[in-house]
Amino acid sequence: MTAPWAERMAMARALALGESVLGTTSPNPPVGAVVLAADGTPVGEGATAPPGGPHAEAAALAEAGDRARGGTAVVTLEPCAHTGRTGPCTDALLAAGIARVVVAVPEPTALAGGGAQRLRDAGVEVEIGMEGPAAEAGALASWLTAVREQRPYVVWKAAATLDGRVAAADGSSRWITGDAAREAVHRLRATCDAVVVGSGTALTDDPQLTVRRPDGSTADRRPLRVVVDRRGRLPATARVHDDAAPTLVSAAPTPAGLLAELYDRDVRRLLLEGGPTLAAAFLREELVDEVVLHLAPKLLGAGAPLVGDLGIGAISAALSLTVVDVARVGADVEMRLRPALRGDRSDRDERI
Amino acid sequence: MTAPWAERMAMARALALGESVLGTTSPNPPVGAVVLAADGTPVGEGATAPPGGPHAEAAALAEAGDRARGGTAVVTLEPCAHTGRTGPCTDALLAAGIARVVVAVPEPTALAGGGAQRLRDAGVEVEIGMEGPAAEAGALASWLTAVREQRPYVVWKAAATLDGRVAAADGSSRWITGDAAREAVHRLRATCDAVVVGSGTALTDDPQLTVRRPDGSTADRRPLRVVVDRRGRLPATARVHDDAAPTLVSAAPTPAGLLAELYDRDVRRLLLEGGPTLAAAFLREELVDEVVLHLAPKLLGAGAPLVGDLGIGAISAALSLTVVDVARVGADVEMRLRPALRGDRSDRDERI
Repeated sequence: MTAPWAERMAMARALALGESVLGTTSPNPPVGAVVLAADGTPVGEGATAPPGGPHAEAAALAEAGDRARGGTAVVTLEPCAHTGRTGPCTDALLAAGIARVVVAVPEPTALAGGGAQRLRDAGVEVEIGMEGPAAEAGALASWLTAVREQRPYVVWKAAATLDGRVAAADGSSRWITGDAAREAVHRLRATCDAVVVGSGTALTDDPQLTVRRPDGSTADRRPLRVVVDRRGRLPATARVHDDAAPTLVSAAPTPAGLLAELYDRDVRRLLLEGGPTLAAAFLREELVDEVVLHLAPKLLGAGAPLVGDLGIGAISAALSLTVVDVARVGADVEMRLRPALRGDRSDRDERI
Repeated sequence: MTAPWAERMAMARALALGESVLGTTSPNPPVGAVVLAADGTPVGEGATAPPGGPHAEAAALAEAGDRARGGTAVVTLEPCAHTGRTGPCTDALLAAGIARVVVAVPEPTALAGGGAQRLRDAGVEVEIGMEGPAAEAGALASWLTAVREQRPYVVWKAAATLDGRVAAADGSSRWITGDAAREAVHRLRATCDAVVVGSGTALTDDPQLTVRRPDGSTADRRPLRVVVDRRGRLPATARVHDDAAPTLVSAAPTPAGLLAELYDRDVRRLLLEGGPTLAAAFLREELVDEVVLHLAPKLLGAGAPLVGDLGIGAISAALSLTVVDVARVGADVEMRLRPALRGDRSDRDERI
């Protein structure tokens, strides 16, 4: 029998494996899996491959080979029971002779669900919930929100001065933050399926919106570049039109419309990079799930604000967030926040 | 002979004693002192009393009594050699029979200087510089800047939303931050000799500007309340006119003029609490030594900005600061910053 501590260590490793492929698996979830032999020895591990490639369980089983027989599969998400671009993972586990499956998070979709039941019906012992909260807060968070809400998970990233300016009075907005913060943005882009800007930002900054390494070279990860351009303002010469990554110019009339369009294109985790008008539109419709704010220790005293009009008149009606994390990144400060749950917003009551 | 470790421990204690009286000693420096007997045993300690009361050395010597004879005095600042409202500390040390004096920071003023020399001339061993950098960055920092610049050290404290708003569109500005941040402001006020606001803030918020305890009661510390009111807008009914603390309404035409007026009133450490116009005036004249910024995790999208116009047009000309510390305070974030040294501001060169 497998010792519990071996399974817990395997789950920690499986969670890390899932994190390692965040941003590369959509529309599939970033899952990690470890196979333990009957005596508890780790004999295989894997993570979800890009779409069309093997799921985490299949990769781990392939590495384990015959040693999986009578062993335990430790997986961050309940193995699927349906045939998509690959066969059901449940069948692969049964074929490999796995005797026990330990799962962190149950499969939330009806389509892929039923895996645990199918395994139990075949005589496999299934435990669900080990490290469940950690798994839900980790690599799977965006995907779980996306399938639950049927829209991409939205990370809003912005860089501002201490006085909330994203550009100076003359319109200049590049290099507000330093090298370390900019490198953090590229790492963040690499975890997302798409990077979105408004046409204003595209015109003013002409960003390339690619994932670049610290040396400036383009990384292998090529998230979809999206410019929201309802009025056809984006010129053909814009840098997002180069061949460094795929690009979508969208005329979606609303944030919800854009998200629906991107969900259909398999985007599950989206980085909203601005500008103030687009960010305000997403915030007003409560379509921001997470905020990554880089604050440069600078003051401008004038210039474009972090967000445009939110339709808020009084402090008591302010859009409230919760600080998840604060860290120094080079000379700048990175704050990670989540919008407060709707039930937490006391202003809602006050406004009645 | 006194062991070096006993002296280092005594200096750590002396530094803490100095911190404990920050904000209560002006125009005198907040000094701490410990007296060790000849065998190294601590036998007395003290800190600067409010003006007219004993200096740290005198208090420590009084507690030590005869046990000071042949012993060591460990002091954060070089003992004074002049007679002000109290007699020279050097004389007190000599009268007590102290054989050795250990000092962190040399006295920077010519008036009170010469203490070390006077002691050496009398045969006392004097060591200067132990924990010097820590002492200069600690309780003495404000006083050292004040006497060097002949103006009060200025701490600018502000509370803003993530998008740099200090008030909402309707003008409401109270309670941007939560209880913990507001309590931190009261602790900060207690370390200052004066609290300054502009008439706009005084009219809009009608603050009391006192130091209050978490239970709402007024603390013993009563820093001078200062309202800059050039146009006589402050009504007699303003709360700063209550008897909870002394109040000065100043018509000083410039920040430098105000600082000169306050220096003459023995203010050495000043808390500038706003609003945006007054803060911008101080920042433009480079008269801010330290910034304490409370950021509430909220977005407003409109409303008064953290600072008014700074005359800055481009990002490259932004007023640069250095992050000294970042911490979570309740649901809010506190950033402590210092303006970058003038020589650090590369934009100065770029603008040429």
